[in-house]
Amino acid sequence: MTVIVPAAGGMAWELSAGTRLRVVDVEGGQTGDVFAVAADDLSDGQSNGRSFDYGGTVRLTTGSVLYSRRSRPLLRIVADEVGVHDFLYAPCSQEMYEIGYGATGPRPNCFDNLTTSLGAFGVPAATVTIAFNVFMRADVAPDGRLTIRPPTVTAGQGVTFQAERDLVVAVTACPAATCNDGKLLPLGVDIDPQ
Amino acid sequence: MTVIVPAAGGMAWELSAGTRLRVVDVEGGQTGDVFAVAADDLSDGQSNGRSFDYGGTVRLTTGSVLYSRRSRPLLRIVADEVGVHDFLYAPCSQEMYEIGYGATGPRPNCFDNLTTSLGAFGVPAATVTIAFNVFMRADVAPDGRLTIRPPTVTAGQGVTFQAERDLVVAVTACPAATCNDGKLLPLGVDIDPQ
Repeated sequence: MTVIVPAAGGMAWELSAGTRLRVVDVEGGQTGDVFAVAADDLSDGQSNGRSFDYGGTVRLTTGSVLYSRRSRPLLRIVADEVGVHDFLYAPCSQEMYEIGYGATGPRPNCFDNLTTSLGAFGVPAATVTIAFNVFMRADVAPDGRLTIRPPTVTAGQGVTFQAERDLVVAVTACPAATCNDGKLLPLGVDIDPQ
Repeated sequence: MTVIVPAAGGMAWELSAGTRLRVVDVEGGQTGDVFAVAADDLSDGQSNGRSFDYGGTVRLTTGSVLYSRRSRPLLRIVADEVGVHDFLYAPCSQEMYEIGYGATGPRPNCFDNLTTSLGAFGVPAATVTIAFNVFMRADVAPDGRLTIRPPTVTAGQGVTFQAERDLVVAVTACPAATCNDGKLLPLGVDIDPQ
């Protein structure tokens, strides 16, 4: 199954263990958020702190596992043509646009897109803490300072995840201009049951 | 009020906005976990991703704010004699000792100490995602690899937080030998209503 996540939108699916989900940058230079939750405990969402601990790195790529808050493997990265992703930033939200950019009116945002799409499967909004930001480029300086850079991903490149257990997974196409070099584009998602 | 958090233990308190909480390393070389939740929404716990975003750094020290999942300021660091803390690692847990160190029996751990002490105030365990690891030294290499080093904190040094709203806050004395250079020691906590 191939679907298009529209620019500034989000979608979610139930994935059986073993299913592969590939996120493809259709036009180039577009980032997105991925959030996975265990189907048997909808409060057991992905955790950057657990994934950093067990993987020994803040940079996840082929072979890396996204672990849950309860230390259960959720998604494994099985192919990655990009190798540049972020797991440090929380998903953009209405509050983020207000605090970080002075927005005064409603803005499409990944947090609402994740919670709305996951909510249709019963996932509480409070489970959505930290997203895996595919193709997002955030440099960490030696003193810890963070800088968001334009993404390096080009049209047709992607990253492929395998479900390590039954999951609910959401994917957004991020509307943050800072992360996308000013553009708002769709992302492609291929779902391939094994 | 001055209390001692026993070695490998944890305690929690309700703090009114403006209250200061100081964590002191009594004997030297001991790390701990701090977890704060908004009193008016016990699902709105601290978020490393929000704090990294608004602070522009993964290294929090004097002046830094610990933000919640909903982007609300919870704690502000108002004094810091150490300047070395970690906000990348999830709290140690029974599963962490099993996966990371091959533990076969029950181990005291920060996650259980946080959830038990916070649970007495009604905080759900699912709220406890990522701790602020005071005095923990985790280096991030340029390629993203993480290395836990012995702490630099010496006896009598501490870090002081101010509650930015009404909170429930827990503090543990971490039992992970890796983070504490093999020792298990208590921590002191001073709570000073303004």
